Amino acid sequence: MQKPTSKTLIRNADLIITMDPDVGEGPLGLIRMADLLLEGDRIGAVGRNLKVHGATVVEASGQIVMPGFVDVHNHLHESLIRGCGTDQDLFGWLEACVLPIAPRLSETDAYVGVRLSALDLISTGVTTVVDWAELNTPKWAIWGNIRALLDSGLRFVFAYTAGAYTDRASEGRDLREVIGDIQYVKQELIDPNPRGSLQIGSHPIISRLEEFIHITALARELGVKLHIHLLENIKERRNQPMEVLKQAGALGPDLLVAHAIHLTDEEIALLAAHEVRIVHNPLSNMRLASGIIRLPELHAAGVKVGLGLDGGANDTSDMFNVMRTAIGLQRVRLLRADTFPSVVEVLRMATRGGAEVLDMEDQIGSLTPGKKADVIILNPADFNFGPCFNGIGQIVFNAQPVNIKWVFVDGQPLKKEGQLMNIPPDLMQKAEEAVGRIKHRLEGYK
Amino acid sequence: MQKPTSKTLIRNADLIITMDPDVGEGPLGLIRMADLLLEGDRIGAVGRNLKVHGATVVEASGQIVMPGFVDVHNHLHESLIRGCGTDQDLFGWLEACVLPIAPRLSETDAYVGVRLSALDLISTGVTTVVDWAELNTPKWAIWGNIRALLDSGLRFVFAYTAGAYTDRASEGRDLREVIGDIQYVKQELIDPNPRGSLQIGSHPIISRLEEFIHITALARELGVKLHIHLLENIKERRNQPMEVLKQAGALGPDLLVAHAIHLTDEEIALLAAHEVRIVHNPLSNMRLASGIIRLPELHAAGVKVGLGLDGGANDTSDMFNVMRTAIGLQRVRLLRADTFPSVVEVLRMATRGGAEVLDMEDQIGSLTPGKKADVIILNPADFNFGPCFNGIGQIVFNAQPVNIKWVFVDGQPLKKEGQLMNIPPDLMQKAEEAVGRIKHRLEGYK
Repeated sequence: MQKPTSKTLIRNADLIITMDPDVGEGPLGLIRMADLLLEGDRIGAVGRNLKVHGATVVEASGQIVMPGFVDVHNHLHESLIRGCGTDQDLFGWLEACVLPIAPRLSETDAYVGVRLSALDLISTGVTTVVDWAELNTPKWAIWGNIRALLDSGLRFVFAYTAGAYTDRASEGRDLREVIGDIQYVKQELIDPNPRGSLQIGSHPIISRLEEFIHITALARELGVKLHIHLLENIKERRNQPMEVLKQAGALGPDLLVAHAIHLTDEEIALLAAHEVRIVHNPLSNMRLASGIIRLPELHAAGVKVGLGLDGGANDTSDMFNVMRTAIGLQRVRLLRADTFPSVVEVLRMATRGGAEVLDMEDQIGSLTPGKKADVIILNPADFNFGPCFNGIGQIVFNAQPVNIKWVFVDGQPLKKEGQLMNIPPDLMQKAEEAVGRIKHRLEGYK
Repeated sequence: MQKPTSKTLIRNADLIITMDPDVGEGPLGLIRMADLLLEGDRIGAVGRNLKVHGATVVEASGQIVMPGFVDVHNHLHESLIRGCGTDQDLFGWLEACVLPIAPRLSETDAYVGVRLSALDLISTGVTTVVDWAELNTPKWAIWGNIRALLDSGLRFVFAYTAGAYTDRASEGRDLREVIGDIQYVKQELIDPNPRGSLQIGSHPIISRLEEFIHITALARELGVKLHIHLLENIKERRNQPMEVLKQAGALGPDLLVAHAIHLTDEEIALLAAHEVRIVHNPLSNMRLASGIIRLPELHAAGVKVGLGLDGGANDTSDMFNVMRTAIGLQRVRLLRADTFPSVVEVLRMATRGGAEVLDMEDQIGSLTPGKKADVIILNPADFNFGPCFNGIGQIVFNAQPVNIKWVFVDGQPLKKEGQLMNIPPDLMQKAEEAVGRIKHRLEGYK
């Protein structure tokens, strides 16, 4: 006998932002005073006065319902280095906090750090995250990392990172060994789970061109995206990354590029011509003194751009802050407000736009019936948010993570009435212990 | 018989940031594993293992205790226009949302909007706020505004605004009438209350120089600061504000300047020479496309700068976000992380620095025994904040308002165990009604 499909009816919402212009009004597909039916792991129906029997009812009167956020670039174990190197730029922070710590992670450390970050992401309404493992994380830590993603309830893409960041011999594992691990992880851990998928991570560095060519080929062979960091800091020019991408034949819609701050007009045109995808991480770019992405220029060239939190370089997870900072950085750069992204555009970027960047728009990013039931409910009556003058503008400029009351992934609640679900016992205490172990192993820690 | 002094003992805090190098270690005056005694409206004592009888005990084990934030520039009634004009620059937003709305405020509207903003400020740990009323707010609304400040429990400075922003006849009230009101408000509403003080607000505009000279004289006569907006948008050059300040003799330590973004080297030197005070509002400057203040240059010139939330132009009240944005904007402007302000410097700016800008450092800004008992307690074990790698860096880069568990002003709790106190009944519903009235009165509302 088949298990009956679970149903959840989100009822009487003040506003449903479907993100689908074919389902609701305007570019965001708005429906006022309406219901949303989650059937099993899918959106069953959306509209006014849905008649449903046998559903669990979530009363959403006065609330706003929308798709969960898609965080296209993160490093989830980095909750263990929160607060490290807060007065450093990218390279100072990598040297002080990332490169020495990632190789010292145990499976437990990774599990604890990733579970903690995942809870923080759920708290701010993220339902899909791309988790880019550090290059030099040992394989046992990667298993702990993936196990934590599986346990978190989030939809995730795990970018298994191959190749070394520099020529330092100790930094990267042997490429053949890594390739074996990636195949194992894909078959045994990722593919059996419908909530998980794989990417390959790497760094395009001219001195390691041969390796990058192998890695690009591996990603193509496995049919997964290659996810790189590109020109985050202007000094990365010395690595000639654009030359590496060209020579490796990596430019294409299956290339996902984080940061892409210091681009020339010609490089923007090249990325656009090859349909390369970009993820913008504004909070990280501020903290690490990386710079301001040329977002309106990328948009004008037709490049698809999503938004990311970028883990330990951003520290606190607040997708609303990511959205308003993505707007604000362009406004202070260009001294005008009528530039991309507008409030409507940034809200789309943080949801459906992220899904498009990942080529997952047939699954997630909008509340279109048939898509995955990844949904959040916001309370606009909290004192930081209301009263309602313009709901859309206020989601971007007023909301805080605390306003998110419900988070569903695959129709299952991960946050319920403002409370996170499935918190492992003593998680913060275990995280403190992990930090203790990590610091203990570091010489010259500051 | 005299009422016995109330005592509150905040006990076993993991970290007390006194902000007084004479009381604790380092520039922030840190004391680990310590207690803080509030006696009446004052800091009674701070140190390890305080022996106190008859005190209410607040257990702060695992928590961080520090002075409340000083928000040096805000417009509290603007919670009623949250979400308005989110795709506008300064002038578009003023035209669409501020100038038409302020004259239409009733006493009730102002009371409700200001109470709501005050609760939002308390939630993020602000204990002192400077509330700059809009120029064209009618006097009954100003009374409602001040009544709400008095009822809020916050320490406040009310900037009563005189003079008109432009030459439009309808915009400003008659100056003589305003001067009468200011004297009344000072004597009857502000001076009797030890938590309140007064400033005069105005705009330096060359076409209204005579008026500005009168207003400057009034502020001096009353012995209060003159608080102006200066070169927030580069187009304000046309008003020749620096010329107005010079001609009116307004330059001095009793001049408080909001924004001051588009300054030349000569202007920075002039402001520094006259000990003019500045308040930086980074979130507002981003939203309104105003630009990036030259903060390291101002600091190098010795100018005292505080931080502000700037009300409706910032929308959500998050002092942590203000601090990290004040850092981040300089980092993306200069592409380096070793620039002013550092994490330590920004934390000082948001507390003791704000007190200095207001010339209130003998009263507030640090947990020095004898100063006012304006104190906040943060929980660093929430999932967005911990584990603890570097507490100071994490306050700036990790904290969210939800992490603030206790807020005391004058030793009285305004937030207790994460819950706001003294919330007027049906406040959000009344705010919604106020927004309805305001919109109804506006023609051409969009």
